[in-house]
Amino acid sequence: MARPGGRSARVQEAVHTAVRELEAEVGRDALTVPLIAARAGVTPSTVYRRWGDLGALLSDVAVEHLRPETEPEDLGGLSADLTAWAEQFLDEMASPPGRAYIRDALLGDPDGDNAGRCSAYAAEQIDVVLRRATARGEPRVPGTESVIDHVVAPMMYRILFRPGGLDPAYAQRLVADCLAAEQDRR
Amino acid sequence: MARPGGRSARVQEAVHTAVRELEAEVGRDALTVPLIAARAGVTPSTVYRRWGDLGALLSDVAVEHLRPETEPEDLGGLSADLTAWAEQFLDEMASPPGRAYIRDALLGDPDGDNAGRCSAYAAEQIDVVLRRATARGEPRVPGTESVIDHVVAPMMYRILFRPGGLDPAYAQRLVADCLAAEQDRR
Repeated sequence: MARPGGRSARVQEAVHTAVRELEAEVGRDALTVPLIAARAGVTPSTVYRRWGDLGALLSDVAVEHLRPETEPEDLGGLSADLTAWAEQFLDEMASPPGRAYIRDALLGDPDGDNAGRCSAYAAEQIDVVLRRATARGEPRVPGTESVIDHVVAPMMYRILFRPGGLDPAYAQRLVADCLAAEQDRR
Repeated sequence: MARPGGRSARVQEAVHTAVRELEAEVGRDALTVPLIAARAGVTPSTVYRRWGDLGALLSDVAVEHLRPETEPEDLGGLSADLTAWAEQFLDEMASPPGRAYIRDALLGDPDGDNAGRCSAYAAEQIDVVLRRATARGEPRVPGTESVIDHVVAPMMYRILFRPGGLDPAYAQRLVADCLAAEQDRR
């Protein structure tokens, strides 16, 4: 989106930082483009020209919040690695800030680019876990899309549409069923 | 929400009808509360008092669009019934209007009530299919929440976050895997 180090990158960094600071200070619902622009030291028209509207800007900032900061932990085995990753993913996404970022990412994103980035982040983390298992020579390693369908999708669906019962045991059960189904498939 | 036949119910019906008519005439993005109120023959303050804002009103209307109009077809067997239901659900939800209604239902619904109604509609349809199978004496009928996790959730997750590959064969595979997992579980 932005040339690293270019003016465009500096504007994006300043505006994203302003949003994160003001979210903490005045709360997300009090954010306005003029308020954000003043804090970032740019004109409101710069923000409108680049992001279109407040929703699109908040969507971009939300996706940055949802970007994983570390690789999944290596616990030495597929089941342990995938379970730990799923428990942490659910804990982060089902938290009040996680839910708010998911909503913002979807809401200001009519063309689905940011939603796709959220899904790509999860797929990249799962890829790391599955490649490790393959490198260890573990048998019956499922495909990334199967883990997306049967571990990530149920957690995200319930966060958005069907809350309740979103505890670590739920994440553990989804992973166990996904790995068991892979065994039966072979 | 409204006393059937009461003024409240008449206002809701008039406003919902105005939204549906204007969506068709001027398009969803051109809708405004004053425009909708004028068409419905109420004051804008009536709309604001009742719905809060345009997003909340569009969310209510979207949920009405997403309410199933008929019971799932009875094809005489669990696999056939569930596959046909899943194919139709995916076809409707992945269509451009379906995607727009899902977005509207989520967007104007910070407390999640309307999202919960969408999920309840799917669960009720699945319940009908599963109860029929049980009444036929079919073995290994999965639970509704299992069908939600492994058939509904993957379709809805991909519609929102990971488009592509959303064809009838995908719905068929999800149902087949869900029923196979239920057999292995017993």
